[in-house]
Amino acid sequence: MSLAKKLVAELLGTFWLVLGGCGSAVLAANFGGDGNPLGIGLLGVSLAFGLTVLTGAYAFGHISGAHFNPAVSFGLWAGGRFPARELIPYVIAQVIGGIAAGFILLQIAKGSSGFAIDPGAAGAFASNGYDALSPGGYSVAAAFLTEVVLTAFFLVVIMGATHKRAPAGFAPIAIGLALTLIHLISIPVTNTSVNPARSTGVALFAGSGALGQLWLFWLAPILGGLIGGMAYGWLGRDER
Amino acid sequence: MSLAKKLVAELLGTFWLVLGGCGSAVLAANFGGDGNPLGIGLLGVSLAFGLTVLTGAYAFGHISGAHFNPAVSFGLWAGGRFPARELIPYVIAQVIGGIAAGFILLQIAKGSSGFAIDPGAAGAFASNGYDALSPGGYSVAAAFLTEVVLTAFFLVVIMGATHKRAPAGFAPIAIGLALTLIHLISIPVTNTSVNPARSTGVALFAGSGALGQLWLFWLAPILGGLIGGMAYGWLGRDER
Amino acid sequence: MSLAKKLVAELLGTFWLVLGGCGSAVLAANFGGDGNPLGIGLLGVSLAFGLTVLTGAYAFGHISGAHFNPAVSFGLWAGGRFPARELIPYVIAQVIGGIAAGFILLQIAKGSSGFAIDPGAAGAFASNGYDALSPGGYSVAAAFLTEVVLTAFFLVVIMGATHKRAPAGFAPIAIGLALTLIHLISIPVTNTSVNPARSTGVALFAGSGALGQLWLFWLAPILGGLIGGMAYGWLGRDER
Amino acid sequence: MSLAKKLVAELLGTFWLVLGGCGSAVLAANFGGDGNPLGIGLLGVSLAFGLTVLTGAYAFGHISGAHFNPAVSFGLWAGGRFPARELIPYVIAQVIGGIAAGFILLQIAKGSSGFAIDPGAAGAFASNGYDALSPGGYSVAAAFLTEVVLTAFFLVVIMGATHKRAPAGFAPIAIGLALTLIHLISIPVTNTSVNPARSTGVALFAGSGALGQLWLFWLAPILGGLIGGMAYGWLGRDER
Repeated sequence: MSLAKKLVAELLGTFWLVLGGCGSAVLAANFGGDGNPLGIGLLGVSLAFGLTVLTGAYAFGHISGAHFNPAVSFGLWAGGRFPARELIPYVIAQVIGGIAAGFILLQIAKGSSGFAIDPGAAGAFASNGYDALSPGGYSVAAAFLTEVVLTAFFLVVIMGATHKRAPAGFAPIAIGLALTLIHLISIPVTNTSVNPARSTGVALFAGSGALGQLWLFWLAPILGGLIGGMAYGWLGRDER
Repeated sequence: MSLAKKLVAELLGTFWLVLGGCGSAVLAANFGGDGNPLGIGLLGVSLAFGLTVLTGAYAFGHISGAHFNPAVSFGLWAGGRFPARELIPYVIAQVIGGIAAGFILLQIAKGSSGFAIDPGAAGAFASNGYDALSPGGYSVAAAFLTEVVLTAFFLVVIMGATHKRAPAGFAPIAIGLALTLIHLISIPVTNTSVNPARSTGVALFAGSGALGQLWLFWLAPILGGLIGGMAYGWLGRDER
Repeated sequence: MSLAKKLVAELLGTFWLVLGGCGSAVLAANFGGDGNPLGIGLLGVSLAFGLTVLTGAYAFGHISGAHFNPAVSFGLWAGGRFPARELIPYVIAQVIGGIAAGFILLQIAKGSSGFAIDPGAAGAFASNGYDALSPGGYSVAAAFLTEVVLTAFFLVVIMGATHKRAPAGFAPIAIGLALTLIHLISIPVTNTSVNPARSTGVALFAGSGALGQLWLFWLAPILGGLIGGMAYGWLGRDER
Repeated sequence: MSLAKKLVAELLGTFWLVLGGCGSAVLAANFGGDGNPLGIGLLGVSLAFGLTVLTGAYAFGHISGAHFNPAVSFGLWAGGRFPARELIPYVIAQVIGGIAAGFILLQIAKGSSGFAIDPGAAGAFASNGYDALSPGGYSVAAAFLTEVVLTAFFLVVIMGATHKRAPAGFAPIAIGLALTLIHLISIPVTNTSVNPARSTGVALFAGSGALGQLWLFWLAPILGGLIGGMAYGWLGRDER
């Protein structure tokens, strides 16, 4: 498979992740207004994020490996599963895909007359944040810890489920549903990133607040990814 | 497998899709009345649509390929996976199955004394719509864009998950849950079609409003299906 | 595998189905009282029923075939997949398992001081019903139609997903999630049976109302099962 | 695989189980406050617990067997699937992992200014309890019965889904979703343990109430695990 096709697959897959995950949050989480149980809520958004990866990994996994996430690419590199020379191209493709999805989502959302982005509100346009921009008002320290720990475990699941001794073919289910699980835990804390491309894709449109906090959603997930990739690299190494 | 049996499978599978997806919306989404959290809401309807395809694809996939959707048949043809000579028969079987499901669903729904269809209401009898008939009041442009993009990605997932290099047997999970994901995003926009047979099956019973907007739910999904089928046809071609 | 062990597996599996499905309905569906979104609602109950079969089929499928349901046993017999001589023993084991689960569930439920069964209320102790005992007030005709059609499709999915040309190993997922789907559609109509053993297991404890309507939840599911089994028997027959 | 790596895998897996399951309960179940349907509710928590095991089993199953639970280790020993000499080391690793997760979860939760633990409240910090500490006010007898029966069936599913005649590779799905099912039934009764390490991991931080009732959540799950392990050991033995 040529690098060009891999990059197209990463771009499309990250587009799908941001359109589906952030799209469900922006369009459907609170459908009908505050207190209306028809909306899909945090559970539906968690499921949507996971299903973008589950479905994208079956569609694109045999082309690009289906990272869709700079933290995953960094983590797989740290774990010895991904070559350094493809790292930067992958990350660029992912970020472009994320931004393109944010742009398309904005066009759809603007089709409803009631739509508006409040850049000072937590979770505006599905953006990630801490302190005043955390959905549940969590501190920057709690946000950082959460993103590091969850991204580290995300990488552990990714490395473990794609290990040569793991049952073949099931990895997209394990990895996609791991992302669902991560959202079930942490949407209240940071609106859940564990993915710098996802954070960037909507922060550009969410306004100054989200942009000012974007550093954390690059630093913490990549740090977590490196830790998780190295940890599993050690744990899974001597299996014979 | 004879063409006749394939067409029966497509008819039954599309019947199942419309009965299950639209049936859950009509009968159970808002159970107990406005504001009652016992109802399954948009999340439950999204799950139901996806599970009709997941289960139908395991049941009928080895007979007909389990399209259950004219946009899928067109898209697979555009991607080189489906012969042109079976296209029209498949579409006819799908539409008949969808209408039959709409008819049976109506008989069930009428068994409750409180049942009524308001043809001017968005989502009446699970119909698709835009502008005044969009559940969230989305414009025709937003509706068109949404249906094209989501159907295109639906076809990408279908083509990718059934590619010869994808793990065998998992495609119904990926494809069914892709339809769940699509609904999690877009029920507020158009009540989610991505399937002209599904739209037609209930529009006939939903009244003049839905029928007048039915053109979009043939045009946009088929256009999206063609785009997605061709895009993946290129992306997946040189894999060896 | 001896018939005795098969019958123990059917008894345990049906126990699990009724304990899990009806247990989630009785104990957790409306947790916190009317209007409290903490409860699992119809969506959670639908998922629970499906997961009893999904998990039970992986646990017991290689022992007994994992019917857990007289309508399934009848349908598989009609479809040529199950020997007539085991039909009555299977049904008896299923009914015993269902009643045992109803009894244990009652002991658990009575451990909460607020617990009471109102035999005149729709869905009392997770019982099935029509007319005044239908959760959504559906007529006996709508209830009968619903149970026949959904059980018929349940058998079609079961026969199709276990067909020799279907991918191996996935049938418990397809069949379990088909039961989830069926509940997502029809809890408002009949509280969803499609399984005489499930209906009997709780009707004995729910009081005179449910017992008086139990005939429908034997007749309609078994009729539907026979139709579905025969239909797929024809559809899947000439595959080579 | 060395015992040391197995123990690290059990520690990490149990950490993941408690962080994910209890974390979703503490941080997200009731998001937005009482009556707000945005929170994930008991359904979301049930899903989270199950997904920790589903994902952890794909990641660590080929290393340690993925017990993550003393009752599972005891049950597998009783069923002849796990050597006695590894039993105590496994249990110790699991308890350490559970406590570490409770500690990290506390650090995250404290990052929100509104966070507080009321040691006299049912389900405080996701702890398990009966009588006054049961979420639905269930008696100690109901709690004991529930934990024994559900853990026994959990072991039956585990033993059955990993049986040599069960389809390979699917066990993590069956086992993880069995844990989801168990939570769908029993959160109102005991907040659902079926796992002494999970109960211990949060009881240490939840206060005196939960600690005083911790005995039941060691005794009942292990008893249930032994029963389930032995029962399936008999049921699955003569398969050829």
